Amino acid sequence: MLVKPPRGTRDWLPVDQIQRQKALRTIQNVFERFGFEPWEGPAIERAQLYAKKGSVEQKLMYRFKDLAGRQLVLRPEKTPTLARIIASNPLPKPIKWYNIGKSWRYERPQAGRYREFVQCDIDIIGVKEPYADAELLACAHTVLNELGLKNFTIKINSRALANQLLEDAGVAARKRAFALRIIDKLDKIGKDGVKKELLQRGISAESVNEIFTFIDLKGRLEKIEREITIDPDVKAILDKLVQLLDAYKIPNYIFDLSLVRGLDYYTGLVYEIVAGDFGSIAGGGRYDNLLKKYGAEDLPAAGIALGFERIYLLIKKEDVQPIARALIVPIGQTLPEAIELACTLRTYGIPIDIDLSRRRLSKSLNYANKRRFEYVILVGKEELAKRKFRLRNMKSGQESLHTIKQLIKILA
Amino acid sequence: MLVKPPRGTRDWLPVDQIQRQKALRTIQNVFERFGFEPWEGPAIERAQLYAKKGSVEQKLMYRFKDLAGRQLVLRPEKTPTLARIIASNPLPKPIKWYNIGKSWRYERPQAGRYREFVQCDIDIIGVKEPYADAELLACAHTVLNELGLKNFTIKINSRALANQLLEDAGVAARKRAFALRIIDKLDKIGKDGVKKELLQRGISAESVNEIFTFIDLKGRLEKIEREITIDPDVKAILDKLVQLLDAYKIPNYIFDLSLVRGLDYYTGLVYEIVAGDFGSIAGGGRYDNLLKKYGAEDLPAAGIALGFERIYLLIKKEDVQPIARALIVPIGQTLPEAIELACTLRTYGIPIDIDLSRRRLSKSLNYANKRRFEYVILVGKEELAKRKFRLRNMKSGQESLHTIKQLIKILA
Repeated sequence: MLVKPPRGTRDWLPVDQIQRQKALRTIQNVFERFGFEPWEGPAIERAQLYAKKGSVEQKLMYRFKDLAGRQLVLRPEKTPTLARIIASNPLPKPIKWYNIGKSWRYERPQAGRYREFVQCDIDIIGVKEPYADAELLACAHTVLNELGLKNFTIKINSRALANQLLEDAGVAARKRAFALRIIDKLDKIGKDGVKKELLQRGISAESVNEIFTFIDLKGRLEKIEREITIDPDVKAILDKLVQLLDAYKIPNYIFDLSLVRGLDYYTGLVYEIVAGDFGSIAGGGRYDNLLKKYGAEDLPAAGIALGFERIYLLIKKEDVQPIARALIVPIGQTLPEAIELACTLRTYGIPIDIDLSRRRLSKSLNYANKRRFEYVILVGKEELAKRKFRLRNMKSGQESLHTIKQLIKILA
Repeated sequence: MLVKPPRGTRDWLPVDQIQRQKALRTIQNVFERFGFEPWEGPAIERAQLYAKKGSVEQKLMYRFKDLAGRQLVLRPEKTPTLARIIASNPLPKPIKWYNIGKSWRYERPQAGRYREFVQCDIDIIGVKEPYADAELLACAHTVLNELGLKNFTIKINSRALANQLLEDAGVAARKRAFALRIIDKLDKIGKDGVKKELLQRGISAESVNEIFTFIDLKGRLEKIEREITIDPDVKAILDKLVQLLDAYKIPNYIFDLSLVRGLDYYTGLVYEIVAGDFGSIAGGGRYDNLLKKYGAEDLPAAGIALGFERIYLLIKKEDVQPIARALIVPIGQTLPEAIELACTLRTYGIPIDIDLSRRRLSKSLNYANKRRFEYVILVGKEELAKRKFRLRNMKSGQESLHTIKQLIKILA
């Protein structure tokens, strides 16, 4: 009889949704503290928007036609929408924008990975690498700190560096993009899997061996530089990035030459934040050539998306208090007075619920207990005659009489 | 070259989105002050969820299949999802929940009517009419007041009353549902259109004339009661509702016997809030039989949805300040110190932007003007030597030197 939510999606009850909204508000507050401003785009987009190479794989998109026959998709990510908006509007640069919203991908559901998921995106358009990248990482870092996450690490790589290393390993230019896509599967298919696929795609055994000497490289920049020679232009960017992360007082980062980040449109720095058992909880990078493809000026750009679903699983608690500070329970024929009290307390900004069920007191108190209310305010004829209300502390069971003024003071 | 948003959807730049989010937060705050708690469901649902009679018309839904062949739709409204959640979870009753989120309908776009739109829903499950209805109307009323809307009217009708009047007019029971659906088109097709359709559907000329004597009836309950005789059970509910609206101090309501509200699942009171030229900006009603159809207990229920898109058009302003209180501009090689200043001010909760563009001062100030920043903080070597920063008021052009402590005081 019940129609369940589609596979990979889910319903959120208040016990979760109260916490989710609180966390999303923290994220939004930090974004705004960093000067990012909100934008919003449609959840449904024309399929052509993702036809350009480099976005999410076509088979992962939910596709449909409207009645006029237009090919539409549910957005699988938000960067193409952002690119369209930047291209369509003359705006002073740089642009620092954020978006908190859902995207949809037809992927195999796992813990913290749904087919419908909330991502929190920050993007900086018009600032060269690595200045924007450092500000983005500082913002994401502050978000995770304020959410109370302790053990997370920022992994950094450079597409330019990766391409240089593939070149040094003798991989032809036309094979580098798919070689990166194969290396990106390291976590999923392991070293042997990556080796096998690289060989299958015509990369020589010698090149594959060289690739594996560098994708194992992880650590501070000095360590990487002891092992490999970095092209001077790339080195200048990485050195500057390290200086900036220092200025932002971010200690928990490493360079990881195996880091690819799936999307083809990244051009320079790429980054990922990993936490606990979940692996990646945020990722992004520089996409300097993307905006031009959408008809905008040729602007440098970079962005990070925080994966909210996984972050939420890391921070969620089992119990939450109800949103209302107290439940007002009318006793007998006192509903008008109970409503008046609710209206007054609400005017003072105090969240107040009122039991409108017209049931026995014991049932109302039972309900208040189940809902974990801290206070119940009993409105009875006797007390009303004295212009007072009975406040019951649901934990201790203690009751005391108060005027409205006193109630406001206690509950505000 | 540009891929536009699909017809009936739109992009929102920060100038709008800042205002939209502020308004949505006001709405959320009022909902919570009334003790409503948030829930969330998927935007995509199985098509069967809407197969039950009485939801939005089938042709208005965006339909698609996932790769496994499941028939899915973009939710055209949220009540069936809510019903599913209530039916699937044992929860203490009553339930007072809210949801703020998007729905999608394939309708002809108009001013304030999009194919993708935000609705703000409040529902009370487990409270009989008219107690929940009055609380819902009081909450919606407070929302609109706090958003600064002045001229709005609550229109109220009762499905039970409408059915009684159709019966009195000699309309057979099986014809009453579609007669109501035709009357619902009054605003769109006018009286002549409604008359014509009623006659076409086999309702007698005599009945049609009787119907028109009561659908013109609008006003206070006393006025209605002077014109028609109301069934005692219905009258008891309407009298009680008037008493409650009085207790909540809501003056701006009328009874309007032409009010139907499209959805078939309404059973008792229906309501709509109209404002200015836009007509309806909110609507809802009682759906006592719906939850049972979804496999839940037989619970009384009622809800209101505020149409955010129209409300936003009524309250939007042309200009907004940027979110950041000030733009920090490093002069010369002071980026690390500028970053340190930004970090400190942000730690105090002050939203701060920093110009990372490495450009000439005149360009940065030009940018700050275009963005309408109130303050620019100039970080120069000379001032840094004195542990001070230069604060420029962008309106007056006046500059003054300040320590970090003083800046915090001015900007906080």
